[in-house]
Amino acid sequence: MTADLTIPKMIPNLISNSISDRFDLKVGVNGDRLNRRIEQLAKIGKQPSGCIKRLAFTSDDIQARYLVQQWMSEAGMTLRTDAAGNLIGSYAGTEADLPAFATGSHIDTVPSGGKYDGVLGVLAGIEVVQTLHEQNRRLKHPLEVIVFTDEESTMIGSQAMAGTALLNEPERYQPSPGDSIQDCLERIGGDWNALATARRDRTQIGAFIELHVEQGAVLETTGNQIGVVQGVVGIRRLLITITGKANHAGTTPMTLRQDALVAAAQVVLAVRNTARRMESQPVSTVGYLTVSPNSVNSIAEEVQLTVDMRDLSKDVLEEMTDRLQQDLHFIALDTDTAIETAPLLTVEPTPAAKPIQRTIASVCQQLNLSHCSLPSRAGHDSLEIGRVTNMGMIFVPSQAGISHSETEYTSPEDCVNGANVLLHTLLKLDGMQNS
Amino acid sequence: MTADLTIPKMIPNLISNSISDRFDLKVGVNGDRLNRRIEQLAKIGKQPSGCIKRLAFTSDDIQARYLVQQWMSEAGMTLRTDAAGNLIGSYAGTEADLPAFATGSHIDTVPSGGKYDGVLGVLAGIEVVQTLHEQNRRLKHPLEVIVFTDEESTMIGSQAMAGTALLNEPERYQPSPGDSIQDCLERIGGDWNALATARRDRTQIGAFIELHVEQGAVLETTGNQIGVVQGVVGIRRLLITITGKANHAGTTPMTLRQDALVAAAQVVLAVRNTARRMESQPVSTVGYLTVSPNSVNSIAEEVQLTVDMRDLSKDVLEEMTDRLQQDLHFIALDTDTAIETAPLLTVEPTPAAKPIQRTIASVCQQLNLSHCSLPSRAGHDSLEIGRVTNMGMIFVPSQAGISHSETEYTSPEDCVNGANVLLHTLLKLDGMQNS
Repeated sequence: MTADLTIPKMIPNLISNSISDRFDLKVGVNGDRLNRRIEQLAKIGKQPSGCIKRLAFTSDDIQARYLVQQWMSEAGMTLRTDAAGNLIGSYAGTEADLPAFATGSHIDTVPSGGKYDGVLGVLAGIEVVQTLHEQNRRLKHPLEVIVFTDEESTMIGSQAMAGTALLNEPERYQPSPGDSIQDCLERIGGDWNALATARRDRTQIGAFIELHVEQGAVLETTGNQIGVVQGVVGIRRLLITITGKANHAGTTPMTLRQDALVAAAQVVLAVRNTARRMESQPVSTVGYLTVSPNSVNSIAEEVQLTVDMRDLSKDVLEEMTDRLQQDLHFIALDTDTAIETAPLLTVEPTPAAKPIQRTIASVCQQLNLSHCSLPSRAGHDSLEIGRVTNMGMIFVPSQAGISHSETEYTSPEDCVNGANVLLHTLLKLDGMQNS
Repeated sequence: MTADLTIPKMIPNLISNSISDRFDLKVGVNGDRLNRRIEQLAKIGKQPSGCIKRLAFTSDDIQARYLVQQWMSEAGMTLRTDAAGNLIGSYAGTEADLPAFATGSHIDTVPSGGKYDGVLGVLAGIEVVQTLHEQNRRLKHPLEVIVFTDEESTMIGSQAMAGTALLNEPERYQPSPGDSIQDCLERIGGDWNALATARRDRTQIGAFIELHVEQGAVLETTGNQIGVVQGVVGIRRLLITITGKANHAGTTPMTLRQDALVAAAQVVLAVRNTARRMESQPVSTVGYLTVSPNSVNSIAEEVQLTVDMRDLSKDVLEEMTDRLQQDLHFIALDTDTAIETAPLLTVEPTPAAKPIQRTIASVCQQLNLSHCSLPSRAGHDSLEIGRVTNMGMIFVPSQAGISHSETEYTSPEDCVNGANVLLHTLLKLDGMQNS
């Protein structure tokens, strides 16, 4: 089931007498406060190298959650933590029985992370609520800001909420060696045994919108301020093992060789071409490759390499996989090697709901922000939440496309632009609601 | 100066009244004794795995030298050890003032070696002398059998004899960490400080002929019993460093990538093509390749790889190097990467003397042994000795081309064939001598 097939109560009439029309487009979030909070959170887990290490379930993660809870309260939200440790702030709506609109992201980081990845989405969500609260306004829908648990590793938070967590396989979610997911969840107020209770559906969350830094260079390269995300790509990841024959690099004539590395070179180029020849601009990468025996004067006996293919369309992913298999067949024949493939990871794509994409684009137009459509080629919490409700994502530019690094940077203006697009998108969607 | 330009006293007239004509071609070496001695030597340094570890300068190497000295004495030779630790057995000739004919090879092994590499050349040389001695015959020329020191690592023995050793850089010859070449040489009766005295020239050694297992599969593949070696190939070894830009494999569009591994794949294929497009059938190999950061979802930032190119012709090696440099230039442009090359090793080729090649071939014909010409693409002591005198090499088949392994195998018949070709080649060369 894809999220954009059914949005039962939404009517994409942008000229309705919605709160959006009553709410001046020049009204915006408090940008100074937003950027101040980004800097404040960046101090927690900061390393001497300048990067931020705030792994989920650690004392740094908990200190950051503590601060976020204070800001949520200050913004007029009531707080709760679900069984997956997701921290949920709720701002009541004006009409009874409407499903919530939700936004949010995560505040945990990779081992050497930056300031913006995840954090922007959480703090912008809080800022949107606080802006409404300060103007004494409410949406018709309840509005939630969610801090998802451990996005950077297990994704247990969004998986539990989407009902895709493997409830019988806790060992699959071990955050680090020697640490169990049960203990980790307990530490942040969750409960593995009650994990099923964290599950929600579209009767509870009518739409989920995540603001995030792009983590790529498309916006910067194309000179756009806002990215309207078409969906989160699916992934096909393969392990390829090529077996040739080790032999002396001096004494073995070229015609008698079974060189696994020559075959691997052809595979690397085939993997690139697999993406290049598709019109939808998927990506396809060999990032890992090892050679055995890996000696200057030995012909390679075995090469192992990984393939990572991503696209918005499941059909495209399957066509790419099929074509690559055909290429591998011919490469094995050409090089007199054996080539075996094993699946490493399969993630199905999650498209963003078309009405939400259109709403984000029209808000950009009204706010006079340049924008373009693009896929999210990194995974996000919305990948999971988009499986159970209407999902949209807003991207802001990442300088030089860099992320997961101390040099990750998004300008204060871009952060504020993103928060304002989030604010007006939620307002417009609320107004489109024919209640 | 190449060895085949001047063989002042040789006249390639095979129908002269030489000792060869007087010596029945059906006369041959004692094959049982030869093969028995091969087996006996194989016990020294034998490992539980079945391979032989008889590193130069170790007690196993010395034990093997001790046995070889006994066999040399038994064959009627007088013994000496030069300053490089080369063990030299001499069998006097009938005419005064002629330079010696020399044969031999080495008895040290790689850490997991086989029975035949080196050993066959030494023991066949002794067997040739012992055969002459038992028939109470002598050549006109003195005949020497040489056990060269440490062929498998430093090649100090043949380099010292050829005058190519770096006398002022003993640290370049360190056989193993914590062991100096000075101490090692002393252990086997050599003397680093007198190394220059080990040098010899063509007035002392008129011809050097080495019998060796092929360590490749050409003879087996072409169904030949004897290989007439055209020379020992030269080597050009390069280290290539390709620098791209690390980036997220998901979020970076194909068109914005600077993928060091895609460039490396093109380099691997260019290296193969560099050999394929030359008529002389050189070899060219990438055997070593490492990727950084080597992560499934990261575009490769840096790849290091080695190139090993071998051919009999210095001109071909230089043309291959030039063409590869051109290819690298275009690959760097095509992939938006930086490609740097650094030389790792340069060894000039040593051609075998043409008259010796012709003599070996005619002996094969007379002995009714199938034969073909081929280059030696592995290094040997004759690579060095061939720089100062007329050199020839005789190859016998290696089963499946395997060497440096416990499965290295050459049949007893092939070992005896090789020894007989060595015997009759020396006789014929001696007869060709117009003295």
